[in-house]
Amino acid sequence: MAEFVEIATADDPRLADYRDLRDVELRKHLEAEHGLFLAEGEKVVRRAILGGYPARSFLMAPRWLDGLADVLALSPAPCYVVSEALAEEVTGFHVHRGALASLERRPLPTVDDVLDGARSVLVLEDIVDHTNVGAILRSGAALGFDAVLLAPRCADPLYRRAIKVAMGAVFSLPWTRLPDWYDALPDLTSRGFTTVALTLAPDAVPVDEAVAGLDKVALVLGSEGHGLSERWEQTADRRAIIPMAAGIDSLNVAAATAVACYVTARR
Amino acid sequence: MAEFVEIATADDPRLADYRDLRDVELRKHLEAEHGLFLAEGEKVVRRAILGGYPARSFLMAPRWLDGLADVLALSPAPCYVVSEALAEEVTGFHVHRGALASLERRPLPTVDDVLDGARSVLVLEDIVDHTNVGAILRSGAALGFDAVLLAPRCADPLYRRAIKVAMGAVFSLPWTRLPDWYDALPDLTSRGFTTVALTLAPDAVPVDEAVAGLDKVALVLGSEGHGLSERWEQTADRRAIIPMAAGIDSLNVAAATAVACYVTARR
Repeated sequence: MAEFVEIATADDPRLADYRDLRDVELRKHLEAEHGLFLAEGEKVVRRAILGGYPARSFLMAPRWLDGLADVLALSPAPCYVVSEALAEEVTGFHVHRGALASLERRPLPTVDDVLDGARSVLVLEDIVDHTNVGAILRSGAALGFDAVLLAPRCADPLYRRAIKVAMGAVFSLPWTRLPDWYDALPDLTSRGFTTVALTLAPDAVPVDEAVAGLDKVALVLGSEGHGLSERWEQTADRRAIIPMAAGIDSLNVAAATAVACYVTARR
Repeated sequence: MAEFVEIATADDPRLADYRDLRDVELRKHLEAEHGLFLAEGEKVVRRAILGGYPARSFLMAPRWLDGLADVLALSPAPCYVVSEALAEEVTGFHVHRGALASLERRPLPTVDDVLDGARSVLVLEDIVDHTNVGAILRSGAALGFDAVLLAPRCADPLYRRAIKVAMGAVFSLPWTRLPDWYDALPDLTSRGFTTVALTLAPDAVPVDEAVAGLDKVALVLGSEGHGLSERWEQTADRRAIIPMAAGIDSLNVAAATAVACYVTARR
């Protein structure tokens, strides 16, 4: 049962986890250093707790307490109760979805664990936008993918914005970081996956042809700006494209992923 | 040829179009009232000007001028030259993509004009998020759709964030507002379109079955939160779903649109 603690001043040190949530650089630093992440909104907080992440604390305005009473009953962490104005002062924005929680990160699973039994996997190279990472996880979960692997420099799925966009998929879909960028795709090939890179390369074939009849597939996606690295593009088993209308550069990476997941799920 | 005007103070009234770009409510009000919209970044500004939107003015730091020299040569509007620090002070954020332009809105085309010759059309009811509107336009353009119709309350495709995400598709893909919400779908049916609503309704069929063999198709998409209105869901000719994994609520509307466009384009 969470202990309820009323707090009335913005500079109370117990609110340190919740400061300046709109300052991406500051938050990345602070969250990595303290091994924490932030969840926002009743639904997301509930999924994080039920997904087994231990809470460090909760931050609530009085009228948000009822919706999460069952979750608060499960957790020994303190629940800081503040006015909505104080919540806004501390976080730097109007918390319109209510509840916030600061949660402890857990050690990431191994690649072996994440791939155990998986038949359809997403592999993200250097996606930089948290919204895209969240949207990709949500689409992967909805369209029947089993796991997600992230290159070392891919944006953090446990960043607040990514979690919010993923609608909790980050807590249900198994994912981890790849320890080795250079040989990541050959390693997947040696594990029996056919690696299919989405790219605009001239030898790319339509994605439905690229995945037709395959058993274990790893769909490989590159950065928003410049796409995949040369290394990954060259070490993928196949290169695939989503056929597009003449004169259009490309699809947004989250949209392309949704289409590719749909097609791959029906291979 | 744009006239170059150096400006050194943030309160110069000539910079009024560029104030507080992160304040969504203020901007919606100001832009509607003055019939203007903002484009951000060299690529987007170029597409807006080449798309025929008259510039009211440009706002540039000196090092951004070269990239748009050809575009500035085409326009009689003034180009305000400011330091990057001053640009940040006026707009309220770090303008990392460079160039800004304030452009004049044009009268929207009629529904007749937008549908002339169209075979695949997107119809957006009350999408509220500008990122989603932009992503949907980009996917529609990339996946071969011919036009977009917006319900009266759908978010503005000419809002800065929507334009940026659409990567200029808002300037190339024909679109307009529907004058009448209530009979919008029956009107499309009477024009020979089969209206296919994406929904989680129990009688929805998989989207590939719903569009198979159809000639003129209007894909109908609802709001992020509660989906389509009852009126639109009931007046659509067909209800379709993107098959999803068990236990997942739904796809993000932009991801669902990308999949539905892909499937519809290959009907």
